[in-house]
Amino acid sequence: MLKITALAGGIGGGRFLRGLLRAAPDAEITVIGNTADDITLHGLHVSPDLDTVMYTLGGGIHEEQGWGRADETFSVAEELAAYGAHPQWFTLGDRDIATHLVRTQMLAAGYPLSAVTEALCDRWQPGVRLVPMTDERVETHVVVDEDGHHRAIHFQEWWVRMHASIPAERIVFTGIESATPAPGVLDALDAADVIVLPPSNPVVSIGPILAVSGIREALSSSTAPVVGLSPIIGTAPVRGMADAVLRTIGVEVSPQGVAGMFTDILDGWLVHSSDSDVVPHVEALGVRCRAVPLLMSDIDATSAMASAALDLAAGIRGRDS
Amino acid sequence: MLKITALAGGIGGGRFLRGLLRAAPDAEITVIGNTADDITLHGLHVSPDLDTVMYTLGGGIHEEQGWGRADETFSVAEELAAYGAHPQWFTLGDRDIATHLVRTQMLAAGYPLSAVTEALCDRWQPGVRLVPMTDERVETHVVVDEDGHHRAIHFQEWWVRMHASIPAERIVFTGIESATPAPGVLDALDAADVIVLPPSNPVVSIGPILAVSGIREALSSSTAPVVGLSPIIGTAPVRGMADAVLRTIGVEVSPQGVAGMFTDILDGWLVHSSDSDVVPHVEALGVRCRAVPLLMSDIDATSAMASAALDLAAGIRGRDS
Repeated sequence: MLKITALAGGIGGGRFLRGLLRAAPDAEITVIGNTADDITLHGLHVSPDLDTVMYTLGGGIHEEQGWGRADETFSVAEELAAYGAHPQWFTLGDRDIATHLVRTQMLAAGYPLSAVTEALCDRWQPGVRLVPMTDERVETHVVVDEDGHHRAIHFQEWWVRMHASIPAERIVFTGIESATPAPGVLDALDAADVIVLPPSNPVVSIGPILAVSGIREALSSSTAPVVGLSPIIGTAPVRGMADAVLRTIGVEVSPQGVAGMFTDILDGWLVHSSDSDVVPHVEALGVRCRAVPLLMSDIDATSAMASAALDLAAGIRGRDS
Repeated sequence: MLKITALAGGIGGGRFLRGLLRAAPDAEITVIGNTADDITLHGLHVSPDLDTVMYTLGGGIHEEQGWGRADETFSVAEELAAYGAHPQWFTLGDRDIATHLVRTQMLAAGYPLSAVTEALCDRWQPGVRLVPMTDERVETHVVVDEDGHHRAIHFQEWWVRMHASIPAERIVFTGIESATPAPGVLDALDAADVIVLPPSNPVVSIGPILAVSGIREALSSSTAPVVGLSPIIGTAPVRGMADAVLRTIGVEVSPQGVAGMFTDILDGWLVHSSDSDVVPHVEALGVRCRAVPLLMSDIDATSAMASAALDLAAGIRGRDS
């Protein structure tokens, strides 16, 4: 049975994985989820990326929105606002809150996040094994300049409240130095036949996962092909604000710019059909590159993307090429 | 300005206090609330009696039900059930959960329950100063005999899940030995012109309040008249299951039975009109007694009850008699 291990952020990761499940229905898929955008809101431990993947693959996602629950209600949020509770820039839906209550209570009882995630997935049956990158607390903070004052704010505040409108001067993963991979992470990388980087945000979704001690090394030393899909088409992200964070770390907003971040681990890289001109530039980095349609417009298109990634990997393993 | 201090449980207490506010609109009313039926559910600190009083006086109560929020929704509870989260015998409404989130988060941040209650009341403006009996944790547990096994369960489980259908062998207020009155409690008793015991459950609502170190002594030594209203009419409680807990502690289920629990603190006692025959028995206990209508069927009837209690107190103070 083909063993696939994928690193994933939230919306893009979840949608791509839905296509991967369709493209490789018999594969054993492990997903290493980003937890650096986790945040404590109203005393609840919220794991936006893990939940987005879980809801997307488990059939609970709000499809149009891409995050949060379908058929959501907002009574709790209304009441929290009536109490003047902060923050008010992040609205938690009622159904979503139940997930956070279960998580927060289990964490308080001493269960690690990986065990909590497994328990939550027991309900959602996402069809993949979803493992957080680490059981330790890591939070992405963004340093912004507000009227000459440098202030570090949680990534979610910058992303959700400010819509990344103020430039991020620096991006910091607090707690990353001491974070170790959650149980199962290194094993899944070690056992993988293929390792996939979905078109998630390379800086704040894939970045923190690779920054956990030992994970980047496991990918670079892996004998399994590591293939990624560009989240950038032309000079803009397909979705989200990856361009803003790429600029912060001084990386060109282009398919080859992002590939350049991962040359130590990448064996293959898919760019969008319209970016076929960059293929030689990526291959010059020592990374096999193909141009295929990369718009996740529906499940068929997404499944075709996943198949293209698996084909590229198979080619790299020498079976198809 | 007349200073009234009342001890209160949940539904009966809240409804009576609404009548008291109508009867004495210019009085300064402090309510010492029972916290012994507090319970932690899904990691949330729930204070049923405090909230019932706050919602009732603040206009947020579900009127027919007597507890919980008006216009309530239950998305969180549905989802918690889908996760198989326990307990499932206590359903928290979404709007109600917001209150518990604010409380739980403030407690976790180090605020005492009294400060949390004040913050919550800042929204609800109940028209009284609501103070928990103690900032320490006290929980009412009930010892039941299940097939020969003695088991202590939380009062809420016995009351809500079992509907008090198994006899309570013993009632224990865990933590009561070390509990001290919350800030403002003894001051409010000391400053009171009248102290009122609403028709709350004498065992599990009034009982724990009086069991907090110093409170019973403050009532018995007070120069202000202490007047109470019987929660029992004839041989049955007006509402609730006070008879079950009275039997546990070996007290006769009658207006004079309940009065007998409080002879050290009571100066006056109101019984229902139909119980006028017990008046001499109560007076034989050294407690001034009057028979008046005690059914809180509407706000006018409840206000008349409160007026009767204040009249009785005034008579005891020697102004009217």
